[in-house]
Amino acid sequence: MSTAIDELQAIIAELKTELEEQKTATRNARDKIEHMSAEVVDSNPYSRLMALQRMNIVKDYERIRDKSVAIVGVGGVGSVTADMLTRCGIGKLILFDYDKVELANMNRLFFTPDQAGLSKVAAAARTLSFINPDVRIETHNYNITTVENFDNFLATISTSGIEQGQPVDLVLSCVDNFEARMAINAACNEHNLNWFESGVSENAVSGHIQFIRPGDTACFACAPPLVVAENIDERTLKREGVCAASLPTTMGITAGLLVQNALKYLLNFGEVSDYLGYNALNDFFPKMTLKPNTQCDDRHCLQRQKDFQARPKPVVVVEEEVSNEPLHASNDWGIELVAEDAPLPAVDATSKSADVATGLRLAYEAPDKLDTTSSAAETVVGDGAPEASLEDLMAQMKSM
Amino acid sequence: MSTAIDELQAIIAELKTELEEQKTATRNARDKIEHMSAEVVDSNPYSRLMALQRMNIVKDYERIRDKSVAIVGVGGVGSVTADMLTRCGIGKLILFDYDKVELANMNRLFFTPDQAGLSKVAAAARTLSFINPDVRIETHNYNITTVENFDNFLATISTSGIEQGQPVDLVLSCVDNFEARMAINAACNEHNLNWFESGVSENAVSGHIQFIRPGDTACFACAPPLVVAENIDERTLKREGVCAASLPTTMGITAGLLVQNALKYLLNFGEVSDYLGYNALNDFFPKMTLKPNTQCDDRHCLQRQKDFQARPKPVVVVEEEVSNEPLHASNDWGIELVAEDAPLPAVDATSKSADVATGLRLAYEAPDKLDTTSSAAETVVGDGAPEASLEDLMAQMKSM
Repeated sequence: MSTAIDELQAIIAELKTELEEQKTATRNARDKIEHMSAEVVDSNPYSRLMALQRMNIVKDYERIRDKSVAIVGVGGVGSVTADMLTRCGIGKLILFDYDKVELANMNRLFFTPDQAGLSKVAAAARTLSFINPDVRIETHNYNITTVENFDNFLATISTSGIEQGQPVDLVLSCVDNFEARMAINAACNEHNLNWFESGVSENAVSGHIQFIRPGDTACFACAPPLVVAENIDERTLKREGVCAASLPTTMGITAGLLVQNALKYLLNFGEVSDYLGYNALNDFFPKMTLKPNTQCDDRHCLQRQKDFQARPKPVVVVEEEVSNEPLHASNDWGIELVAEDAPLPAVDATSKSADVATGLRLAYEAPDKLDTTSSAAETVVGDGAPEASLEDLMAQMKSM
Repeated sequence: MSTAIDELQAIIAELKTELEEQKTATRNARDKIEHMSAEVVDSNPYSRLMALQRMNIVKDYERIRDKSVAIVGVGGVGSVTADMLTRCGIGKLILFDYDKVELANMNRLFFTPDQAGLSKVAAAARTLSFINPDVRIETHNYNITTVENFDNFLATISTSGIEQGQPVDLVLSCVDNFEARMAINAACNEHNLNWFESGVSENAVSGHIQFIRPGDTACFACAPPLVVAENIDERTLKREGVCAASLPTTMGITAGLLVQNALKYLLNFGEVSDYLGYNALNDFFPKMTLKPNTQCDDRHCLQRQKDFQARPKPVVVVEEEVSNEPLHASNDWGIELVAEDAPLPAVDATSKSADVATGLRLAYEAPDKLDTTSSAAETVVGDGAPEASLEDLMAQMKSM
């Protein structure tokens, strides 16, 4: 009898070990690494990144560990953005989303079918920590556009830097709606934080990124999409049984361009694009720079514009290595580049004339107050272009 | 006593169930789906892809299930390429690689640290089947460049179509060396298969894709990189303690551009780029078309050129929707496009004069036989540009 018990207990011990192994295999694949090494061995997850120094691309790659980046929206673009930054060994990631993973998201990279039903931030945090345990991951599972959450969002991005109490180094917007973009814009204008806006069109074949430096370049409110300016509730535009198309290619490329430019900014190499578009149908990549709108509705933006004008302009340092390729060679629209030290036009709040950002024309005279009736815009969206969503229209506006 | 045994057996039953759940969770996350549905529900992994039809981008998306694609090289570009095609619901993928996953690969997307030590094709097949069990995955764990394996490779790509015995619909080269590219080139010329070549530079900040249609566009041997033409053994150039740099961004973007153009070709939408480059430092995307070299060393290429000239040219069908954007607007080098129905220059095998592909100039007069001494090239690689690898030099050649 006691032999039987011994045998059963041996089986239990064995099963427990196997279960522990099974669980461990999906949790800790490697130990934390204190310092990035350039040593060329198969077991070094940073050798190919540290090699950027030997290739004269990045001066001090390990500085990436001192950077904290907030990602708002962990969907098709945001999740791949987080994945790339995690594999690059970023110091800290702060993820915001309030959505759940669904099987309907499986046509984009990153999430896996077993995660269906989990919150996007929780599922992402688990995968990211597993991929690189050196990265600090902080998650916020709420919608940033409600009054209370907006305050939390504001407080978080202004205090969650690598050193607690310091702001994050960069905010990346990977959201899919106008309201959230305006919330990020308001927050970054208020706290003077540089951020990248990104987006993918509803027909899945175009995307863009835009680098916004408050006061220096146009903010998101400086040149709002015309239809959205009418204050429609976006949710009224969603129709039952209809969804946006998406492709892992367009989302992956947009995330890649976003993170590449974020890396160039954070690690100070190459040339950061102010606006970069991508049209998948003909592999067309428009580039441009938008100046701030001196009539912007965001009062913090106007203040940042004043600050920027008053700021002593940086001394232009001639770089040692100059690329042989033409700068902005793919700028096919002849839109002029604005040098960082170019003087801004004087802010004249009383003027109504079209002193509008480069590359845009006013489709209407700026009114004193926005028309709050939304019927006109609804007619356009509902009848004229049944397939056109706000995303779509925004992309069209952007590419004008 | 028997109560104790009952209790122990209950514990065993519980542990077995938990273990089974743990194992199952990482194996079958969803059942197979027989037909792609456009129904907009959270549980449909194809709703966002089928929406491409309603958006007038793709006519019949489900045709993707009738396509078989071979991916040679399952590294930084190849693994993401396989991931994207799997999530798009491709019918069949045939993966070739002979390398193992290492922690040193973790700075690129797709593989996870727990897979270190597994063969790349086995690890990839497991993840891909888990993500989308509808995709048929076939793996080949060998180096395609040995004599015996080359024959296997040739037989596989010419018979592993969706219908057994038929060739694959497309070959995607995601390898990292000249020898493998030449092997793929030889195979595709022999069997008249269309393929995409891809590559990322050793300094991690540029990449390219090239669409090769035997006889119609330049094959890989039509315009070989000059240094490699000297027949150096690439392995002699690898130095101890030195590795190429890589970034998940550049690799992800290159994979994205590769798969996007493969989708445009397979599903017949948009405009497939013949050559598309990417320079990460200034977000520059050169495009061009290379005509075949009438003095190409590959006899199958010369035969394909003859076949192409003899083929009745397709009737040009005017498409319903014409983009308002300029075609090839980002062609900044003034390289002319070659229409599909443009006549080829007559093949004159006796001529030595520089009848070379558009966009290239000969750096030397084509010799009767290649010089087999490699000292000159070694000097260039070893002294003149210590960081320049073949990859690097090839990329430079390509962008000339």
